[in-house]
Amino acid sequence: MNKTIYLKNRPEGTPSLSDFELKEEDTPSPDEGEILLKSKYISVDPYLRGRMRNSESYIEPFKINEPIESNIISEVVSSNNPNFKEGDHVSGMQKWKKFQVSQGKGLNKVDPNTAPLSAYLGILGLTGITAYLGLDKIGKLKEGETLLVSGAAGAVGSIVGQIGKIKGCKVVGIAGTDDKVQKLKNDFGFDEGINYKTTTNISEAIKKACPNGVDVYFDNVGGEILDAALENINKFGRVINCGAISLYNAIETPTGPRHEGTLIKKSVLMQGFTIRDYVKDFGPAIKQLATWLKADEIKYSETIVEGFDKTPQAFLDLFKGKNSGKMVVKI
Amino acid sequence: MNKTIYLKNRPEGTPSLSDFELKEEDTPSPDEGEILLKSKYISVDPYLRGRMRNSESYIEPFKINEPIESNIISEVVSSNNPNFKEGDHVSGMQKWKKFQVSQGKGLNKVDPNTAPLSAYLGILGLTGITAYLGLDKIGKLKEGETLLVSGAAGAVGSIVGQIGKIKGCKVVGIAGTDDKVQKLKNDFGFDEGINYKTTTNISEAIKKACPNGVDVYFDNVGGEILDAALENINKFGRVINCGAISLYNAIETPTGPRHEGTLIKKSVLMQGFTIRDYVKDFGPAIKQLATWLKADEIKYSETIVEGFDKTPQAFLDLFKGKNSGKMVVKI
Repeated sequence: MNKTIYLKNRPEGTPSLSDFELKEEDTPSPDEGEILLKSKYISVDPYLRGRMRNSESYIEPFKINEPIESNIISEVVSSNNPNFKEGDHVSGMQKWKKFQVSQGKGLNKVDPNTAPLSAYLGILGLTGITAYLGLDKIGKLKEGETLLVSGAAGAVGSIVGQIGKIKGCKVVGIAGTDDKVQKLKNDFGFDEGINYKTTTNISEAIKKACPNGVDVYFDNVGGEILDAALENINKFGRVINCGAISLYNAIETPTGPRHEGTLIKKSVLMQGFTIRDYVKDFGPAIKQLATWLKADEIKYSETIVEGFDKTPQAFLDLFKGKNSGKMVVKI
Repeated sequence: MNKTIYLKNRPEGTPSLSDFELKEEDTPSPDEGEILLKSKYISVDPYLRGRMRNSESYIEPFKINEPIESNIISEVVSSNNPNFKEGDHVSGMQKWKKFQVSQGKGLNKVDPNTAPLSAYLGILGLTGITAYLGLDKIGKLKEGETLLVSGAAGAVGSIVGQIGKIKGCKVVGIAGTDDKVQKLKNDFGFDEGINYKTTTNISEAIKKACPNGVDVYFDNVGGEILDAALENINKFGRVINCGAISLYNAIETPTGPRHEGTLIKKSVLMQGFTIRDYVKDFGPAIKQLATWLKADEIKYSETIVEGFDKTPQAFLDLFKGKNSGKMVVKI
């Protein structure tokens, strides 16, 4: 029996399980030129919240009563397409379905012998590429600089920090539990960690952790942590606006201190980063990440939730910070 | 008799005449290696407000009971320095004094036969350079794009718009009186003008004036006009944060809508611009501006206030938008 998860309502504020609907359906059969895919690992990502909103963004909104989609690693179960054979594994933007047919467009083969399948959703997938290209294209990190990362124990953040260490930078991470902060330092080699939930004055904590100021801030969260980072930014600082998870569930337009004065005084650059703008650079990025991974210079962590039906809950848990590293659902 | 204008108090909020003190003093005599300078034109600029604040910025704060300084065009009255002779005209950061001595450091000779002396404070001075390099280094204007400028009838803004037209862009300016808006269109060749003081919904007005959206926003004012510009920004838009005159007199930290979401959605770049970061590019910038000026491809406007004693009032009038183009004091 096949299963599909649909968007039932556009969430108001924080999404809840009632915004999703799971339906049992027949398993489809591949036509001529098609393949039948079985989902193995589903990626759940904060940016999907944006697609649930009916507003202009860099990617089309989901439609009500249509399946959610995200990056999925699937196995080819049967093939009527000469480019794929039974047992192949592929990565691509797919619907939240246990089984689905595809003409093969936009699917990339992945090799389970090179790295575990779930790694192709993380370190060797869009999250690794995001970390690498965000730092490369906007951060332009230089040896000896100070790199601050928020959402540091998350999928992107934990890779960002490790690349910072490879580049010879001082790296400070911000995360939401003491366990995560310990992990940053012990597992990922960060120099310092800040638990923003138990710190009353984040700006002061950043100042203490970054006595030479912040040269590059890789922002996954936006909001008050961005404000605090900018209070510590150095002349010619760069801010990579990669995510704003603290604002994604806001109903009214969030407000905060104006930053234009700081940008002018310190000649600061802030730039929004979306990997879709850099598709031509994916190849070299994956190659570099795979080299580091093979040489054991970079580690990744993932939170694996078991069971297709748990996919909506895994997505909701992202906003509670329940994941450490890349959140994936194993089917 | 010499005269000097001192900073008497650090202004709280909007500066007033009582923050300045004019004193009559003896005219100094140049020692060996020194020259005696007579001020001819004094530049008053919004950024000087920042130097009246006792806070870290890109330039050292003024000290209480010391003379204000800004860019001044002076005539050499007598010289004990072989590099200068009587009758030379020079440009440089000088004190607000009718007469002062100098060792010649940081002074550049200017030629009154090439352009009127006051032009060296405007189109061929820091304001022209600001317009040119801000667009060149951050805006990276491309033919056919839409350029929006705030403070458009001001010293920098009026030059920014004209450079936009030379580059083949659609140019829309925002200013604070109907007269200024007319001037933008009739004198400076802007395509459209918006009077922000008589417009209730600035975002809608920008949308109407820029049906293809805004590719580059040259911001001289910050605050709500920046917000409205960002509501109309295009994918890959660039914002040159050159000034924030709307915030300079704020006592509490100004707040407004958070922009990180827009930056991410539209892959927007915002960068603070200060010409001090680009001193090595001044030569080519002035050369290009002089070429355009000579070919009558660019015009400049100035508001000339007569009388040394009026310098503080001229400065205060900047914040009321009383100037059109570069505000200078003629002595």
